[in-house]
Amino acid sequence: MQLAFEKAGGLLPAVIQDATTKEILMLGFMNAEALAATRASGDVTFFSRSRNKLWRKGESSGHVLRVREIRLDCDEDALLVSVEPAGPGVCHEGYRSCFFRRLEADGEFVVIAEKTFDPKAVYGEGAR
Amino acid sequence: MQLAFEKAGGLLPAVIQDATTKEILMLGFMNAEALAATRASGDVTFFSRSRNKLWRKGESSGHVLRVREIRLDCDEDALLVSVEPAGPGVCHEGYRSCFFRRLEADGEFVVIAEKTFDPKAVYGEGAR
Repeated sequence: MQLAFEKAGGLLPAVIQDATTKEILMLGFMNAEALAATRASGDVTFFSRSRNKLWRKGESSGHVLRVREIRLDCDEDALLVSVEPAGPGVCHEGYRSCFFRRLEADGEFVVIAEKTFDPKAVYGEGAR
Repeated sequence: MQLAFEKAGGLLPAVIQDATTKEILMLGFMNAEALAATRASGDVTFFSRSRNKLWRKGESSGHVLRVREIRLDCDEDALLVSVEPAGPGVCHEGYRSCFFRRLEADGEFVVIAEKTFDPKAVYGEGAR
């Protein structure tokens, strides 16, 4: 099956869902190489758009995401990855999920989650 | 808060999650106008990349997605929309979720869901 990597400049959005809680933890992007690395290692590996290279999630923090299942959508241009997270959270700001803000009726986004770890202790000065 | 629409050509990926079952139903894209229309109507409205216009999900099928909550990620470049689906499924191929295929160890994607409606009866000859 040919994945539609070309639709988004070689990158497919990959939704990361906790296999147990069903919580959405984050959204990253994979190119063909990142998907291959994910399959080969069993750990979620993205292509970092900001760093322009493969990024094994948890490579610095140890908070790797073990892959349980990979699904593909009908248009072959999005991936859903069910994972077992190794750490207390995936977000570089210290939250379990990167989706820790909710849009309120007044148009403001407000934080609705508690931090699950200290990002400075885990990441130092800005590494992810 | 300024959303990072410019990162992906004016479009943010929007993950659609069933508020009750937590199942991921689909992934679409929203520009600022689509997000505004979603908030104003209470129904998920995407920007269709293929048709280059706003696309209120369910506008032809009646299978609208009522918004329960909208979340934003840490980088302000992805949305998570919790919905109550009005119909039996969101996929134009007749499935509850667009993510109806699973990647197997041999590299093939196989269908692992049952159809929940007849797409020809709902969509006619190809409309969504």
